[in-house]
Formats: sequence, structure tokens, C-alpha cells
Amino acid sequence: MPRLYVALTHYPVTNKRGDTVASSVTNLDLHDISRAARTFGAQRFYVVTPLEDQKVLVERIIAHWTTGVGAAYNPARRSALELIRLKDSIADAAEEIEGIEQDCPKTVVTCARRYPSSISFEKMRGILQLGRPHLLVFGTAWGLAETYISQADYILEPISGLTDYNHLSVRSAAGIILDRLLGTRK
Amino acid sequence: MPRLYVALTHYPVTNKRGDTVASSVTNLDLHDISRAARTFGAQRFYVVTPLEDQKVLVERIIAHWTTGVGAAYNPARRSALELIRLKDSIADAAEEIEGIEQDCPKTVVTCARRYPSSISFEKMRGILQLGRPHLLVFGTAWGLAETYISQADYILEPISGLTDYNHLSVRSAAGIILDRLLGTRK
Repeated sequence: MPRLYVALTHYPVTNKRGDTVASSVTNLDLHDISRAARTFGAQRFYVVTPLEDQKVLVERIIAHWTTGVGAAYNPARRSALELIRLKDSIADAAEEIEGIEQDCPKTVVTCARRYPSSISFEKMRGILQLGRPHLLVFGTAWGLAETYISQADYILEPISGLTDYNHLSVRSAAGIILDRLLGTRK
Repeated sequence: MPRLYVALTHYPVTNKRGDTVASSVTNLDLHDISRAARTFGAQRFYVVTPLEDQKVLVERIIAHWTTGVGAAYNPARRSALELIRLKDSIADAAEEIEGIEQDCPKTVVTCARRYPSSISFEKMRGILQLGRPHLLVFGTAWGLAETYISQADYILEPISGLTDYNHLSVRSAAGIILDRLLGTRK
């Protein structure tokens, strides 16, 4: 099993004008990305927000599906949402992973733009198979802040379709990227 | 460009108990799947529901993003949601495609279960490259009704991750399947 951890961050991200902001949490991001993380064997799914009211919201959603009425109603949903851990910052997530793995995780960021240093999915897939822990970070809103992207260990190439349209939802992008990095073909 | 059309159907689908029902429309299904369809070059995205109140809802969402305030606010979203066509049935969607293509589309259904006749993504990708029109059908709720699945021309194999968990959201599944069938790798 790969030592891949996933994070969805709501800060620092950019808004439409390019300002760095904290975005609000979208309920279905938690569901869709935890289900994809569970499908492809990611170890944990960190939801990152420093905002107190947003943390309360995330905790209520997780509780409903892991210990509340939703857990009995839909056990498959429970086993996905149990992967979620709520953190104030990406650094806090990385610190927890270091404690689990006894090894500092490399950070892998995702972006709809190509950088000179972008790494291909194929290459990243090979690196993950070497077995060291990695933290794959997705940004909400208009994407991760440039300052954070520039500090990451790896920048993944953008998802390329048959068009030049590059506006997938973060839910779709997370599913496709986990499949490209960890998916199997019969 | 492939002659691939996508449909998301809300009838006939199954509920948790296995009964055939009409499900309600989820706003983010329209956004996420139209954005993925646009990214991977699908021709149109049919949203199928026979329920009048659900059709009104879908029309309001499409209008907001294609001609209303949302169109100016986010042109990228407009160009995705412009792919949506609302239909009463999958047969109506197929009939429209036949009119456009002057060729009856083959139907390709998706399901989380494997069938003896399931076709691999690789094989389906090759078939699409031959250039005939195909309609790729996704079911909401607990998936397409068996009666409909058994009538399709092709049943796609389920998405396999590194685990036996097969509970992706239809939004994630649509993104991953379009990528497996049409995505490119640099």
C-alpha cells in the first residue's frame, strides 16, 4: 500500500482576483475526496482550514457520518469519512504524518497551470512506488497560493484532456489524479 | 475529436433497497460532470429526468450560468454548462444524437459491479477512436437499473483502485472514466 496522504486546503488559496484568502468548506468536497482516497488506498485525508466556524462545520459533517445517524444508514460512507483529519495548516498535517511514518513527508502540489519544474504523473507514480511518505495537496477556490506552490517538493503537471479547457472541480481533479497515481487497470 | 456524448440519468435508477426509482438532481453533478465533459472533449452532456419539478430546477441552474449573472461572473463555467441538454429519457437523448450524427449511437453503461460481459477501459478507448458515435451513461442514486444495463451495447468494467472499496461519487467516477477513455498523458 502506498504511503500517500491527501490534503484539501482552504488556506492559503487564491480568489478570482489572485488575492490570498481562506475559502469556505464545501460539503461534497469532503464526501467525494474521502471516497476517492478510500478507493485508491490513501492513508488519511486532511481537511485544512484555520477558520473556527468552518472547523465546527467539518466536525459536524464528520460526526454525522462516522458516529451519528449517517454511520448506520451508510457504512460505506462512514469508512470513507473516517479517513478525514481536521488541521489548522498543511504544516500541522505534515507534522502528524512525520509522527506516524517516522519520516518527513515530501509535499506534492496540484495546479491547473504547467510550471517549468512540473513533474509528470508517470514519474510521480514511480516515485510513490519507492515507498517514502508523500502528502498530495489540493487547493480550493482558484487554487493554491503561489507562495505555497513554490515551496513544495514536487509540482504535478496539470490534467490534460483533449481540449485546452482546464477548469475541473477540485473533486473531479482529486479523483482523476489519485487514479493516475495509484489506479490499476485490469 | 471523439464523437462521445455523456448522459447522467435520474431514471431508471435503483435506491438503497434495489427498487427502481427516479432520483432528485444534485446541483454539483451538473457542474462537475459538464466541466469534465468539456475538459475531455465530449460533444454534449444530457441530464435525464422525467420529473417536471426537477426539470424546472435544472433549467434554472443552466440559465443562471449560461445567460444569467453567472455567465458574466464565470465564463469558464458558462462554456461547460452550455454542453447540457435536458431530456425526459435516455432514448430521447439517443434520438437527438442520431439526428446530429446521422448514425445511431452505441450505448455504454457504467456500473460499480463487474459483469461477465464487462469491457475494459483500454478496449473501449480503442473503439471510440474508430469514430462512431457513443453515448456514455451514468446513473445517480445506487446506480442504473439492471433492466437498462442489460439492454446497453457495452458495460464498462468498474473502476479499480488499490482497495476493494467501490463507492465513488458519480461526479468522481465520471471524471475518472472520461480520463481513462479520452485523457492524454504528456
